[in-house]
Amino acid sequence: MAKLYFRYGAVGSAKTLNLLAVAHQYERQGKRVLVLKPAFDTRFSAVEVVSRAGLHRSADRVLADGEVPPSHIAADADCVLVDEAQFLTEPQVEALRDWTRALGVPVICYGLRADFRSRLFEGSLRLLELADSIEEIKTTCAWCNRKATQNLKYVDGRASIDGPSRQLGAEERYQAVCYRHYREQLDAARDAGEKSADGLGASVAPGGARV
Amino acid sequence: MAKLYFRYGAVGSAKTLNLLAVAHQYERQGKRVLVLKPAFDTRFSAVEVVSRAGLHRSADRVLADGEVPPSHIAADADCVLVDEAQFLTEPQVEALRDWTRALGVPVICYGLRADFRSRLFEGSLRLLELADSIEEIKTTCAWCNRKATQNLKYVDGRASIDGPSRQLGAEERYQAVCYRHYREQLDAARDAGEKSADGLGASVAPGGARV
Amino acid sequence: MAKLYFRYGAVGSAKTLNLLAVAHQYERQGKRVLVLKPAFDTRFSAVEVVSRAGLHRSADRVLADGEVPPSHIAADADCVLVDEAQFLTEPQVEALRDWTRALGVPVICYGLRADFRSRLFEGSLRLLELADSIEEIKTTCAWCNRKATQNLKYVDGRASIDGPSRQLGAEERYQAVCYRHYREQLDAARDAGEKSADGLGASVAPGGARV
Amino acid sequence: MAKLYFRYGAVGSAKTLNLLAVAHQYERQGKRVLVLKPAFDTRFSAVEVVSRAGLHRSADRVLADGEVPPSHIAADADCVLVDEAQFLTEPQVEALRDWTRALGVPVICYGLRADFRSRLFEGSLRLLELADSIEEIKTTCAWCNRKATQNLKYVDGRASIDGPSRQLGAEERYQAVCYRHYREQLDAARDAGEKSADGLGASVAPGGARV
Repeated sequence: MAKLYFRYGAVGSAKTLNLLAVAHQYERQGKRVLVLKPAFDTRFSAVEVVSRAGLHRSADRVLADGEVPPSHIAADADCVLVDEAQFLTEPQVEALRDWTRALGVPVICYGLRADFRSRLFEGSLRLLELADSIEEIKTTCAWCNRKATQNLKYVDGRASIDGPSRQLGAEERYQAVCYRHYREQLDAARDAGEKSADGLGASVAPGGARV
Repeated sequence: MAKLYFRYGAVGSAKTLNLLAVAHQYERQGKRVLVLKPAFDTRFSAVEVVSRAGLHRSADRVLADGEVPPSHIAADADCVLVDEAQFLTEPQVEALRDWTRALGVPVICYGLRADFRSRLFEGSLRLLELADSIEEIKTTCAWCNRKATQNLKYVDGRASIDGPSRQLGAEERYQAVCYRHYREQLDAARDAGEKSADGLGASVAPGGARV
Repeated sequence: MAKLYFRYGAVGSAKTLNLLAVAHQYERQGKRVLVLKPAFDTRFSAVEVVSRAGLHRSADRVLADGEVPPSHIAADADCVLVDEAQFLTEPQVEALRDWTRALGVPVICYGLRADFRSRLFEGSLRLLELADSIEEIKTTCAWCNRKATQNLKYVDGRASIDGPSRQLGAEERYQAVCYRHYREQLDAARDAGEKSADGLGASVAPGGARV
Repeated sequence: MAKLYFRYGAVGSAKTLNLLAVAHQYERQGKRVLVLKPAFDTRFSAVEVVSRAGLHRSADRVLADGEVPPSHIAADADCVLVDEAQFLTEPQVEALRDWTRALGVPVICYGLRADFRSRLFEGSLRLLELADSIEEIKTTCAWCNRKATQNLKYVDGRASIDGPSRQLGAEERYQAVCYRHYREQLDAARDAGEKSADGLGASVAPGGARV
């Protein structure tokens, strides 16, 4: 049985660059990789896996939302790499988990841990339940030099926890921050009167990030 | 700001022994620890924190199910240690997260990742969303020498995913296993006709551990 | 091929307690462990593996200084555990490395990284060269709440880098400290006039811990 | 006090790409980095930091062999990044260690752990003694899918442990391999009669990689 990995990191932590580096290493050794990507993320391109630092390659397969990929597409692979794995559905994660057992192929998933409300994504949650190895890809807080653990969303220059969680993507609207600055930015936005009935003002409890 | 740690491991991975070792280290350095424990777990004792290897000490506070602990109880502590943290509620985890920011005290939570259905506990889920550091405490599979990642429940000697998830505890009924043996044991139990209307027979999909 | 692990930590980081916990886990699963210990360390007992927190067991074999253990003693073991591994000799580490390949048995070595001069021990050095997995067992600084990385030696209540490195042991004479306090304590001792011709006064450069 | 990191990995493990990704992240947040490089490594370029995957940037300072860099060059930096850190000298590592204390700037060193003889480099050794955090950058074995831990040197297509350790560089002459294949390749080369008086034939002991 091979291993299922979940390598998580905040926005801008070079997850995709790490994926591309691993693909590059395998291929330089004459091995084959299969690069997957959920269809949702069309941030930069529907079929490209693109790092902010400039490297990119084509995804071998873009997974449609309801699609459970058949195992035969991984039959020849020495390693399966998944970009934006937070957008995987439960059945997709379970299929990948099964590949490691049935095919003996390692599967390495790169993705965000939680959304801007500090809530796990569907794919992240199932990966945290099933992965053999949970590894962090680090980056620093946009406001200080501590490690970033949260993703802060900005709307019109103000921190916000409104809106759907699956809009994630555009670089100018999200920042990797530490928990202190996550709380401070959201508290400041609330104090500034940025309130909405179903959003920030009503729902942030003093002691937590619950919505 | 101090850090919030989640140190997870399968059943029998010496999580409590690790907690007791950390408490011992702090106290030998003349520092104070605060040891907390959710009220649910009455496995060995209501107020004792007990490791299978034999060490034990009293919990400084047993948290009732709905109780959000007031921060003043941690005001003098150099470190807060939480046993069986999977049984924490969301507001309890959020309170601990806030202590690290408001009091500057590190909080180290020890607990299971997922239940015998491979589903996160309420406390584990919130810790995986909010922790600064996610660390694994390892143990080996009861059936082989791979690392254990899942908790398998046995009822009358047969693997099962029936019953409530918060019954966890008695050593004779749970085993730490790798994913391969988790699936194999559950598949074998199902093939042996161990089916129930709302339980195993109806709900384990071939490719996953969903119930 | 099984893996060779080096789990290092500063003095008082519960390395031995971790070793005993792993032994306990294997044996509770009906597996066999082989516990080794270099002969040098007679701190608590020549043949006992003793943790400060109170647990202990007999070493299955005490390795004499020049002895390269024959592989047949590990032939039945599911895991080999080595206490005080910093005192291993190079040929001993190489023999253990070979067991993982020839016998397929994992070998987990627990030990200090560096001595009170911040210099690797013979065993630690070879383990850092050959181990498949290098893992840290953490403890906090005796002087603050940062992680301890160095071992500070006290002679007559004053920090010192004099004397042989293989005298390590007695709890009252060593402290786990962070690098800042390691430097500050040694600088203060030097300023207090605690100088010796071949020792501290002459040899601590401002920018390093070189002796 | 900031931290000193040693991020080690075998040849071709994308250490430099990781360095460039971290530099990119800091700069995108409006922070400043200082990129250093020992003068020895002229593999691709004397003043460029170049990853095999294609990214590159100029080193801010190339450290001559005997040069201990003055701290003022890091006074404005939010982070110091060092490429090919195995080639640092002891005083250089100690100076970087001191910067973390005196300037409060984190220093992240990327480099090889050991040479093709499985012996630590001067820089790696001192970093393993002094670093606050030792982290692995992984790659797979050129011969199988296990993790690579050793660097194997090929001369005229045959594995070899002859020659100086500081010739490291040309991609076609080094391979990242697991310990099993490191031993097997060297044993096969020896059996093939590739012997030299001061090199492989005379010096590889059966149980280790000692030269």
